[in-house]
Amino acid sequence: MESLQKERLTSERGGRRNSSMENGGSALKNWRFIGNEKLTQASAITVRGVLNMLMENLNPDEARPVIPLGHGDPSAFPSFRTTPLAEDAICSALRSAKFNGYSSTVGIPPARRAVAEHLSKDLPYKLSPDDVFLTIGCTQALEAIVTVLARPGANILLPRPGFPYYEARAGFSDLEVRHFDLLPENNWEVDLAAVEALSDENTVAMVVINPGNPCGNVFKYDHLKKVAETARKLGILVIADEVYDHLTFGESPFVPMGVFGSIVPIITVGSISKRWIVPGWRLGWLVTHDPNGILMKQGIVDSIKGFLNITSDPATFMQGAVPEILENTPADFFTKIVSTLKESAEICYDRIKEIPCITCPSKPEGSMFVMVKLNLSLLEGFMDDTDFCCKLAKEESVIVLPGVAVGLKNWLRITFAIEPSSLDDGLSRMKAFCARHAKKQ
Amino acid sequence: MESLQKERLTSERGGRRNSSMENGGSALKNWRFIGNEKLTQASAITVRGVLNMLMENLNPDEARPVIPLGHGDPSAFPSFRTTPLAEDAICSALRSAKFNGYSSTVGIPPARRAVAEHLSKDLPYKLSPDDVFLTIGCTQALEAIVTVLARPGANILLPRPGFPYYEARAGFSDLEVRHFDLLPENNWEVDLAAVEALSDENTVAMVVINPGNPCGNVFKYDHLKKVAETARKLGILVIADEVYDHLTFGESPFVPMGVFGSIVPIITVGSISKRWIVPGWRLGWLVTHDPNGILMKQGIVDSIKGFLNITSDPATFMQGAVPEILENTPADFFTKIVSTLKESAEICYDRIKEIPCITCPSKPEGSMFVMVKLNLSLLEGFMDDTDFCCKLAKEESVIVLPGVAVGLKNWLRITFAIEPSSLDDGLSRMKAFCARHAKKQ
Ligand SMILES: Cc1ncc(COP(=O)(O)O)c(C=O)c1O
Ligand SMILES: Cc1ncc(COP(=O)(O)O)c(C=O)c1O
Repeated sequence: MESLQKERLTSERGGRRNSSMENGGSALKNWRFIGNEKLTQASAITVRGVLNMLMENLNPDEARPVIPLGHGDPSAFPSFRTTPLAEDAICSALRSAKFNGYSSTVGIPPARRAVAEHLSKDLPYKLSPDDVFLTIGCTQALEAIVTVLARPGANILLPRPGFPYYEARAGFSDLEVRHFDLLPENNWEVDLAAVEALSDENTVAMVVINPGNPCGNVFKYDHLKKVAETARKLGILVIADEVYDHLTFGESPFVPMGVFGSIVPIITVGSISKRWIVPGWRLGWLVTHDPNGILMKQGIVDSIKGFLNITSDPATFMQGAVPEILENTPADFFTKIVSTLKESAEICYDRIKEIPCITCPSKPEGSMFVMVKLNLSLLEGFMDDTDFCCKLAKEESVIVLPGVAVGLKNWLRITFAIEPSSLDDGLSRMKAFCARHAKKQ
Repeated sequence: MESLQKERLTSERGGRRNSSMENGGSALKNWRFIGNEKLTQASAITVRGVLNMLMENLNPDEARPVIPLGHGDPSAFPSFRTTPLAEDAICSALRSAKFNGYSSTVGIPPARRAVAEHLSKDLPYKLSPDDVFLTIGCTQALEAIVTVLARPGANILLPRPGFPYYEARAGFSDLEVRHFDLLPENNWEVDLAAVEALSDENTVAMVVINPGNPCGNVFKYDHLKKVAETARKLGILVIADEVYDHLTFGESPFVPMGVFGSIVPIITVGSISKRWIVPGWRLGWLVTHDPNGILMKQGIVDSIKGFLNITSDPATFMQGAVPEILENTPADFFTKIVSTLKESAEICYDRIKEIPCITCPSKPEGSMFVMVKLNLSLLEGFMDDTDFCCKLAKEESVIVLPGVAVGLKNWLRITFAIEPSSLDDGLSRMKAFCARHAKKQ
């Protein structure tokens, strides 16, 4: 009887039996543990996964340097070196020996207070430290809120194009994903009619990324207000991903979604990763904007605490450095980073105009990215955007993210947040590549 | 129709409707998002939760200092200050500006290599860097393996008494928990007959914590070998929690479970938290001991990578400091910590013998804890261990963990990893407390 059950178990594993039989050390042994397909599936759609695949196409004999236009991490470039003040803050927190112990699961009080004060500067009211939860980068903040919202049958509305980590986490948590479009012809504004049409009684939230990844757009006050009003009408939460907050260099200033917290409850997620150019430091936050106490009443706040109770925390000494970093970073550090980004965005926009098979619907105004449309009909011999990116990696050692990875097939996401000279080099190579593969007229 | 569905939804929320009606700003509004009970339930059983509850019983008018004998974090005490070498290693990694960017999701190669070499010193063979996955403390390593192993119907065998974080994560992942006893009369060895009796075709793994939390025991080579043989017979994985590795000061030396990797696949989890007394630094690892490649074939390794792809990583500069910390920490730092622990464990054991209502089945030989049995029949007016601990907190400002929090009702878990003078003070207060509440004969 027992061996019969084992037999059944083994065949459920879908043919793994043979492989465990091959094993000398454990021939005839049926092992009862097996991997979790939900994890391998969910993680198959990450940006990092696609970039790793592209890197495998690089030509090892290429003498020119690789130009990484694929990911949002300029920390390796001299123009994007973080402020020494932040390094000093961490070292002195560390050397004080006051932050070697476990933190409380929601974050240590001075760090929560500092984040509340920092974000309140842009708001018409003051956040309380209790509204702030410290997380391991913005990544863990997203993980928290997606996990909290997931329940059988529920769905979440995500932007297309977007940031695929949301799809990965929702997929893992069995939260159904529905996509609304961002409209390239309207400066990548949210298609609010689509949001209403997609939403039903099981919709729990919508996500807004501003400044935008992957589009480089910045939403205007009036549009964000309409987003809030739509969400209120539908009875859903707005998750405002503001990890690129204040990285704006066009006409539209950054407006935090929290401004509209009295219209609809908002959960803002953010981090020091992008503005301070330290994505490896892993410090972020989840903040509730909820003057009417709705998130508390609906049990969302308790669930966030529950999530944080059973996961790991950001390093305590990192938290210890937060007040100094947020309060005392010199303004000219931010000015310099933003002006470097502005310069790069302009180089990017101008050089792209020179490439016939690529069009950019609007000049980037924020974040580190721009989305451009690939016109394959002007080119010879490419199946799709992924094929284009693989060959570009192989022939020119330039890494660009295929749009399909962020939800828009036959578009490309280009990062301009790299050293301006490298950016120029990369775009020249791309131009030469496109010219070489242009269809003969 | 729509409002009917809302009605149903609302009543499923179990009476929350009224509370959202009370809300002025959103009267008549039905919000569609709601908290996640699985998170609040899973997190209700953590040690931190119980300790927080006890702290609420402290008397604010008490002049004497609080003596924390409840948790395993001595980092605040001068005798347990970490080595300056580790602080220097982090500051120099940070200031090099080489580790500001994202790490790879499995950890950066030099850190993986350093952990592999560090752990190989105690093994009969050499680990490969590919066997090592860097995690955010041992906590995230546990979270990873529990999440990987969870599938509908599966169960995991956990020790009683144990470390309740396993129960919390298993509960959240719908992995059924079955408990085997650790036997106080046998130096807290695993009841292997119980392991065999509990296990069935859906059992995937068993957990062994060595050196032991909460018992302070250290398993001998022969016992660990029997554990491995039992697991092999049952076809299950052994999860070896060695977060207290090398913190031993009795007759039994520390033997890593990985020694038996050729008998049965082992997953070892650990961190620098305890041995370096820096639990706030959040650096740990998950290591596969699998010379026969069984974990790979069963899809466990791919699932671990999948998990790490969709979660946050330990700070990159922390990883950058790992080689220096693991290779160059001066031996006398470890010697000093272990001899301080030995001294404290002895004070603890001796002072406990003076308290009639408490008995200690065996002298602690490792980790930072000891389990003692509370004889309530010798005391007046306590309902149970929790009641005892609440009143002890209130009357004496001494925090001790009730055994029920780690699975053994009417026992206590006492931490001896605090400044020896404070430990002595705390145990004196406990003795006075017990004398005051002793039953009149
Ligand atoms: C839109 C968006 N949200 C969240 C994140 C994650 O941020 P962090 O590095 O702080 O975890 C990123 C990182 O690229 C991002 O682009
Ligand atoms: C048995 C056991 N495992 C794991 C952990 C978590 O370790 P870390 O602080 O490295 O996350 C602890 C912490 O107390 C523990 O006692």
